Amino acid sequence: MNGELGAQYLASYRIKTDPLLTNFLRKKINQAAAIDGLSKTLVQKFEKMTKLGKRLRGALVVLGYQSSGGKDIRAILDTSLFVELFHTGALVLDDLMDQDETRRGLPSIHKQFEAEGRKWKIRSSSALYGRSMAMNVGNLAFYLSWEKLMQGNFPAKDLIKAGSLYVKFVTRLIYGQSLDITKRKNTINPKSAILKTIRHKTAEYTGVMPLLIGATLAGLKDQRKKKALEKYGLSLGMAMQLRDDILGIYGKEKEIGKPVGSDLREGKQTMLVYHLFRYGTGKQRAITRNLLGKRALTKEDVRQMKKLLKDSGTLKYVTDLGWDYVDQGKKVIPEVSGDPETKALLESLIMLMMERTK
Amino acid sequence: MNGELGAQYLASYRIKTDPLLTNFLRKKINQAAAIDGLSKTLVQKFEKMTKLGKRLRGALVVLGYQSSGGKDIRAILDTSLFVELFHTGALVLDDLMDQDETRRGLPSIHKQFEAEGRKWKIRSSSALYGRSMAMNVGNLAFYLSWEKLMQGNFPAKDLIKAGSLYVKFVTRLIYGQSLDITKRKNTINPKSAILKTIRHKTAEYTGVMPLLIGATLAGLKDQRKKKALEKYGLSLGMAMQLRDDILGIYGKEKEIGKPVGSDLREGKQTMLVYHLFRYGTGKQRAITRNLLGKRALTKEDVRQMKKLLKDSGTLKYVTDLGWDYVDQGKKVIPEVSGDPETKALLESLIMLMMERTK
Repeated sequence: MNGELGAQYLASYRIKTDPLLTNFLRKKINQAAAIDGLSKTLVQKFEKMTKLGKRLRGALVVLGYQSSGGKDIRAILDTSLFVELFHTGALVLDDLMDQDETRRGLPSIHKQFEAEGRKWKIRSSSALYGRSMAMNVGNLAFYLSWEKLMQGNFPAKDLIKAGSLYVKFVTRLIYGQSLDITKRKNTINPKSAILKTIRHKTAEYTGVMPLLIGATLAGLKDQRKKKALEKYGLSLGMAMQLRDDILGIYGKEKEIGKPVGSDLREGKQTMLVYHLFRYGTGKQRAITRNLLGKRALTKEDVRQMKKLLKDSGTLKYVTDLGWDYVDQGKKVIPEVSGDPETKALLESLIMLMMERTK
Repeated sequence: MNGELGAQYLASYRIKTDPLLTNFLRKKINQAAAIDGLSKTLVQKFEKMTKLGKRLRGALVVLGYQSSGGKDIRAILDTSLFVELFHTGALVLDDLMDQDETRRGLPSIHKQFEAEGRKWKIRSSSALYGRSMAMNVGNLAFYLSWEKLMQGNFPAKDLIKAGSLYVKFVTRLIYGQSLDITKRKNTINPKSAILKTIRHKTAEYTGVMPLLIGATLAGLKDQRKKKALEKYGLSLGMAMQLRDDILGIYGKEKEIGKPVGSDLREGKQTMLVYHLFRYGTGKQRAITRNLLGKRALTKEDVRQMKKLLKDSGTLKYVTDLGWDYVDQGKKVIPEVSGDPETKALLESLIMLMMERTK
């Protein structure tokens, strides 16, 4: 597997950051407990969810820092966690918007609080209660993320520059997310619109933002190198989302941490759907129209969809597109770094995006 | 009216910050428009809502700055808007949690997007769409607020200290908000629990946070003065919330910008409810139990509640409690400032909290 080195890097990042994440969140749990048991529960649920992440984004902050000549590894490991806190919060809200009931193998946060609401005999409906508490968890995640970033052991001016980038990319993510949920009935978006949504909704904040913030904290001024990091990060992020769409149908629930077919159930306009509608036969399109947005999607439906995606050439098309992004990203690696080890790592990591099964 | 000077200060703050707010949000609207028409709509709706605020919190940032010897009025006026952006975002989410349909005289943001969703023939239910877009608006507000604060024309170290305070108080607000929505059936919270919720949910972020952040940006180091500002701000915030509860029943819809009786409809455990249950007669308690949380609350119900609150002495009790906080706040003013003009303003502003009708 060519993504081996990248996978090792992620595993090592997890081991190094586990105690840092625990320390930070334990302090928060104690602060919350001083206010109320409910506040404590809220942070605990968030902690559990945060720890189960892949930590790709945090690792990219460190990689952006190291590849830009940063030397304070201890400081960047700690600060890099800001993006993991943020990302988990974003997923909590994403699950609310998509009505997803499982995340990282756990019931999604709104489902967890819905169950508590029932148990605690809350006056309002337990669904409303679950949603409201999930919003609180999401907002908490965002503000803790700011704390993590702003308290970093870096020059204050660089932290403020990093904060600027953080705002810029999250703003774009919000716009992308808005586009993603604005699915009009009986309309299939053109390829350009789908790629734009993926770019803003996922690729930029997943790939570009962490790398650039890491580079900024290393004090990188070289504009050419920044541009290269940006290109590499964008390609990595695009590949990662395309693979995500494929795993959403072909993955295993245990590995992807959520039910297979959930994108289909939500009627999400992925590149898979685009290709099927654009190049499928009349019959294939009719079946797709039938399954897209079907709330009571069965295992048999998913099986049918898998076959359809293969028969129509869609699976191959989207897989090839993902690998195209990998190739684009690989091309700029020499501009990012001259160091052979770093180059090998960057190459492996972007390949991992398309090789991964979880 | 003793709050006259305070009201003038707020009016003058509005006039001075109007063009600054417009400039900032126009830039954001242009950035959003470059991505998509939908993103533009999202920021425009947020702009309209933000401009309608009372701007109490922003004015307190300036007051905290000036009373701590800060001299760059231009810079603080601009930076102070961070809290107005935040506050509007918090209200958008608050309306979602409380299912309030009107805010600042407009349909609340989720209701606005619910209507758009219907018009645009969105695939998901228009209620879900409205909620999801409102979450996006709320998150946008938070990140724009961070941008406003972090880009302020102040020493980077002071900005980071201000950011720390911002996180601290919003975290506490989130815990307070969680307590507020965790209303158990057939349970009336004790006075201490209600006051704690008000303190975290409103008073600290409304009163203490803006004053302390203003003082921090002025470079205030004097711990005694900081403590005094904190006490004053907390009293102001408590009075402001108690008056809010009263106006929620006795105010005019046109002035308070939302339907009269909405707290009652949501079954909110205010000090009004507490006192009625604690000191009302058996009959008064029975009527209250009947009206609390009644979704189809009528005008006649509100009229009945008004009479009840008067007859039981509850209105007087909560009004007196509000004025007690005003007195507590007034006592520490000499420690905040020695300047007669500033002192007069602080005194008037805290009295305005209990005199205001909107």
